[in-house]
Amino acid sequence: MSQSDQPLADITVLDFGQVYNGPYCGFLLAQAGARVIKVESRIGETLRTRGAAAPSSYPFALLNTNKQCITLNIQSRDGQALLKKLVQHVDVVTENFAPGTMDKYGIGADALCALNPRLIYAASTGYGASGPYRDYLGMDITLQAMSGVMSVTGEGDGPPLKTAAAFADFLGGTHLYAGVLTALHQRTRTSKGSVVDISMQDCVFPTLATALGSFFVAGGKQGPRRGNKHPGLALAPYNVYPAKDGYVAIICIREGHFRNLCEAIAQPALVEDERFATNAARCKNMMALDAVIGVWTQSLPKWEVFAKTQAHGVICAPVNDLADVIRDPQLLSRETLKWRPHKGFGEIPQMHTPLRFRGFNPPELTDVPALGTDTDRILKELAGVDDAEIARLRAVEAI
Amino acid sequence: MSQSDQPLADITVLDFGQVYNGPYCGFLLAQAGARVIKVESRIGETLRTRGAAAPSSYPFALLNTNKQCITLNIQSRDGQALLKKLVQHVDVVTENFAPGTMDKYGIGADALCALNPRLIYAASTGYGASGPYRDYLGMDITLQAMSGVMSVTGEGDGPPLKTAAAFADFLGGTHLYAGVLTALHQRTRTSKGSVVDISMQDCVFPTLATALGSFFVAGGKQGPRRGNKHPGLALAPYNVYPAKDGYVAIICIREGHFRNLCEAIAQPALVEDERFATNAARCKNMMALDAVIGVWTQSLPKWEVFAKTQAHGVICAPVNDLADVIRDPQLLSRETLKWRPHKGFGEIPQMHTPLRFRGFNPPELTDVPALGTDTDRILKELAGVDDAEIARLRAVEAI
Repeated sequence: MSQSDQPLADITVLDFGQVYNGPYCGFLLAQAGARVIKVESRIGETLRTRGAAAPSSYPFALLNTNKQCITLNIQSRDGQALLKKLVQHVDVVTENFAPGTMDKYGIGADALCALNPRLIYAASTGYGASGPYRDYLGMDITLQAMSGVMSVTGEGDGPPLKTAAAFADFLGGTHLYAGVLTALHQRTRTSKGSVVDISMQDCVFPTLATALGSFFVAGGKQGPRRGNKHPGLALAPYNVYPAKDGYVAIICIREGHFRNLCEAIAQPALVEDERFATNAARCKNMMALDAVIGVWTQSLPKWEVFAKTQAHGVICAPVNDLADVIRDPQLLSRETLKWRPHKGFGEIPQMHTPLRFRGFNPPELTDVPALGTDTDRILKELAGVDDAEIARLRAVEAI
Repeated sequence: MSQSDQPLADITVLDFGQVYNGPYCGFLLAQAGARVIKVESRIGETLRTRGAAAPSSYPFALLNTNKQCITLNIQSRDGQALLKKLVQHVDVVTENFAPGTMDKYGIGADALCALNPRLIYAASTGYGASGPYRDYLGMDITLQAMSGVMSVTGEGDGPPLKTAAAFADFLGGTHLYAGVLTALHQRTRTSKGSVVDISMQDCVFPTLATALGSFFVAGGKQGPRRGNKHPGLALAPYNVYPAKDGYVAIICIREGHFRNLCEAIAQPALVEDERFATNAARCKNMMALDAVIGVWTQSLPKWEVFAKTQAHGVICAPVNDLADVIRDPQLLSRETLKWRPHKGFGEIPQMHTPLRFRGFNPPELTDVPALGTDTDRILKELAGVDDAEIARLRAVEAI
């Protein structure tokens, strides 16, 4: 399939994204076929060299495939003037700077949309563009704290705990993409652009659904942290169980799942046991039930527990280590992961988009260009500057 | 603003969503102005009555505002025939059933798209519509296990741990929305619908970016779980610290942040201390550094730590309890949360969409209709049936 058949083949984006949130939005745009021009400062964005002295960090390679890379110094007057030319030729600007950064340099949403009324200016911040916290900085770990998620995560006798998944950042980036696409849809009817305002805090709130459900059932009281159990102890089986070589997670939503589990563990009589006859009874006798299940799971490797339970229609998964994940047969089969050479780490698993359309393949993954690789070509094409002007811009540190 | 000005005012959706993933997609569609018709079985979807005997559970009320509710029995021949009429009048069908459910009843993507070539049929499953796990069931907790996230979450001396945030479900639902909007954009150019295939496993993979970054820097070895510290111990300060009345999270990304923190805690000399002069030095002396910061944070209530650090440009947040979250001044100011009456819990905070467009307000929140409230009206309007036929359909348990 040619690039021009891709869903967003008609869209051009300036992606000022940094770290995870903005760059993931740009990744989704690029993998849906948009032309995504990544704009970096003259030293490159934070993530480019984070960690080892490799040419690019693993997360940077993951999130910046299929983009073109230019440098533009937004602190320089010449850089600002250049951006004002560029935005007249693009559909979308995305950014996740600290609040007010672009406005401070006279190149915020108002200034840019005035130059291009069809422009979609989309920003993601910790707390959004309005409200008492609008100027506050936010990162994944502080959003996990502020959102209440940490308060319900961890063991009952331990401190509140973050998850090592940067889910606040990626929820932010996915909503940023969703906001851009919603604005594009509206533009087809109105011919007008939009200013999209995504708050990571807003995006994380709904993930508390189960915890808040239990909170309101308990009359507005927060119970202790529940480790791997259901936040309200209102569902059983629901836990992480030891296997011979690690752990597995098992959950039963319906009575049928529990019947299936009893068959998988070759104890069909458990269904008749009055301690386990209903979900309410199972919750009351959770420790006894978990013990019975644990005896069985501990007798087998995690992959065998997984295979046997899934074969019986039970919802189960192994607790995969990172070494399992990067060789996961399902992720490899869908080409979500694709191993490619990387300058520094040898081979790494890069990623195709989770947005899949039957009969369409996402674009082939590319290496991430070195800092500023496409600057000259794109400035000539979109800003109409010549070699002499490019040399001048470089000399004054505008690019 | 009238409903017809909303970004998706021209779009009609049949939302077969259940629990969180599908219904959150429907929520985003409805709050962007689409007409969303929630389709339930004759007993209603799982979440409607989960927990207490209240008319609707808290999560159900949260995710199903601004929708119209009809019943339709997909296991009944008459129900299937009815759906085949309905899809000719809608733009989008969304579902997150167990894999193959709709196909089993002859109403999968192929059958429905044949009846309406402009239809966008969008499904979200645990593992996607292809690959060796395509038929496997997945829920939030098992996706946290399979994805590798659990293996890096928890304390070094404890078991792998889930987070109580249902982030796999909500990442799935947000990507489902993103897929629908991408397909709508493509349809404006091609006049053709699409089949959208979202795998929760695909969506969760990128959240491992930091953990995998550390993994590759360490030559492909997974270190121990790090509790609230950086997964690779590669950034300091980065932790959750005790406050007088709870906890706070603090992170410093740049040298400037650390200088600001030293000023906030009234110890500017720390910047000169060679143990803390660079990020590398601070990582090496992490325990000593965390102790110094902890002495200060413990002397103040969490809200004061938050105010003082943010005033100095430090990235910090209190670890909010659920009681803090539902009264959060920022979420209330943005009307992300809006308290409304609920039959069962008195008053609850409902939620507006995180997708915000300057100058536009999302639609006013509504109560969730009782099961089947809109069935008769919508079947008359879209399927062209009369009262006698509706009575017959009800008698044969098709609706």
